[in-house]
Amino acid sequence: MAIARGYAATDASKPLAPFTFERREPNDDDVVIDIKFAGVCHSDIHTVRNEWGGAVYPIVPGHEIAGVVTAVGSKVSKFKVGDHVGVGCFVDSCVGCATRDVDLEQYMPGLVQTYNSVEADGKTPTQGGYSDSIVVKEGYVMSIPDNLPLDAAAPLLCAGITLYSPLHHWKAGPGKKVAIVGMGGLGHMGVKIAHAMGAEVTVLSQSLSKKDDGLRLGADHYYATNDKETFSKLAGTFDLIICTVSAEIDWNAYMGLLKVEGSFVVVGAPENAIPVHAFSLIPGRKSISGSMIGSIKETQEMLDFCGQHNIVSEIELIDIKDINEAYERVIKSDVRYRFVIDMATLKAA
Amino acid sequence: MAIARGYAATDASKPLAPFTFERREPNDDDVVIDIKFAGVCHSDIHTVRNEWGGAVYPIVPGHEIAGVVTAVGSKVSKFKVGDHVGVGCFVDSCVGCATRDVDLEQYMPGLVQTYNSVEADGKTPTQGGYSDSIVVKEGYVMSIPDNLPLDAAAPLLCAGITLYSPLHHWKAGPGKKVAIVGMGGLGHMGVKIAHAMGAEVTVLSQSLSKKDDGLRLGADHYYATNDKETFSKLAGTFDLIICTVSAEIDWNAYMGLLKVEGSFVVVGAPENAIPVHAFSLIPGRKSISGSMIGSIKETQEMLDFCGQHNIVSEIELIDIKDINEAYERVIKSDVRYRFVIDMATLKAA
Repeated sequence: MAIARGYAATDASKPLAPFTFERREPNDDDVVIDIKFAGVCHSDIHTVRNEWGGAVYPIVPGHEIAGVVTAVGSKVSKFKVGDHVGVGCFVDSCVGCATRDVDLEQYMPGLVQTYNSVEADGKTPTQGGYSDSIVVKEGYVMSIPDNLPLDAAAPLLCAGITLYSPLHHWKAGPGKKVAIVGMGGLGHMGVKIAHAMGAEVTVLSQSLSKKDDGLRLGADHYYATNDKETFSKLAGTFDLIICTVSAEIDWNAYMGLLKVEGSFVVVGAPENAIPVHAFSLIPGRKSISGSMIGSIKETQEMLDFCGQHNIVSEIELIDIKDINEAYERVIKSDVRYRFVIDMATLKAA
Repeated sequence: MAIARGYAATDASKPLAPFTFERREPNDDDVVIDIKFAGVCHSDIHTVRNEWGGAVYPIVPGHEIAGVVTAVGSKVSKFKVGDHVGVGCFVDSCVGCATRDVDLEQYMPGLVQTYNSVEADGKTPTQGGYSDSIVVKEGYVMSIPDNLPLDAAAPLLCAGITLYSPLHHWKAGPGKKVAIVGMGGLGHMGVKIAHAMGAEVTVLSQSLSKKDDGLRLGADHYYATNDKETFSKLAGTFDLIICTVSAEIDWNAYMGLLKVEGSFVVVGAPENAIPVHAFSLIPGRKSISGSMIGSIKETQEMLDFCGQHNIVSEIELIDIKDINEAYERVIKSDVRYRFVIDMATLKAA
């Protein structure tokens, strides 16, 4: 057992605080990672505050992990000491499940999440990336291309793949008109990736306050959704709309922006049900779908794609002692566009 | 101009009554059809009672038309006198529209519906199939295979294509598990067609009252949705669910019956919005979509498929003077499974 240091929540109502815990002894198929950076995802907040239920404390959150390999087990062939690697939202999959699907394992039973979950042994709690080290099975570790800075690459492991997967699945590319709803941690990744895929990209944001950023990051068009004319002007325009917001929006108005056969894909999870009218779907063979992160294979593909196109997240690097303040700012959408914790600051914490 | 006889609604609140009107003089690309049979679709009732709005009286309803060609224009090449033909929900398309899509014209602007619509001339009201004759452009007339009886083939023109199109588009076939929700005029066609396509077919109906029929028509399984155990027993089972009912159902419970990447397709239109939770979509990349009839090309393909597999509707043949009583029975779902008007009875009416 190795001692790890991190920040944990010990209760739904308490701030995160320094926490010391044990990482498991590496097995021969494990990779030991010195965590350099961890992105801050809104899911971290939902989980530690038990807003989705099922929190088992203490919880060390963090599933956008970027670091450097410090040791590998004897059977590890894909990684060596010194490699830049990432870990995302899960560290094992299909545990105890007969119907394995290695290409869509994120949707299968038996997923072991990076934190607030239980390892394949059925008892050891998993702890995430707001910490100095982690031990992960080789099959759940991904290579981060050397040309990408580790700090800004960390958010690719959740925000990046959350957008890449639906853009890839629904075939964003040349000739396709794609709208990204929301210009936040997820949305801005969608703009960069959809642009790099060759699609014509439109941002639909509440206001025009981030328009300059949107256009700079790759959007071709930028519209405010608080302007009602946006919906008449863009009626029937898009092949694909990816919705990253979890606020209540006028869903049927957005459905009206789709072309015939268009797809509206939800990656942000609003609290209440989405009231979609049959007449928003039927006269145009339109769809509303959901998408959740991506498989390990697809996440590696996304990282390679981002390496080729020099895509990383726009980040604000923070000291880990400021994590609780950062959470409040995430809730207020006051971040451009993702907080990343510099784990070197843990030593001083 | 030729005089036609039929039954029309003259007001949202009045019963259908005998009505005499003019059919246009045939152009050189027109086909003149002696209507032998017309199916009774729930949409007919919604329209004549103005439940969807936009009714312009008088309305001769009927868009499941089967008949025999009595004359053809000089430029007509696909049909000759004596041919068995059908006309469905529309008689022209893409009128005045620059972005023609001849394979998905049912979803495009400029559709001319078979009744309660206006011809391409911009002024002549269209009148439907509860009548003795109709004049239709060759491109909107379809061949009915000679081995199919005209009376039971009539409902293929709407009920048949409404189910065939999504089953075909979402690739129902060998190895696919398909559920049909509702065992009525639409649902029973779905059972027959999905079975002929080679899919494993399950009917999900409120009760087991039509189970024997369902199994006889091609269903492999039949479950009652008023039995809560159905939803736990079938969780994660289906690649495709086609929902033909317009009643309020527990939508999220049905979404739970889909496999990963499964599609729930709405072809019946409930009055209220469908409250689908993001968590019913996201963890499984599931979709909810709509589908509406089919293109002319696809409808002909469906008729040919039905000819090959000897598929027609299960019908109750009625006298046109009983149409108002039939409407009441349709509303009560008291029909097995589609009323078809025998137009020979019009002479006595």
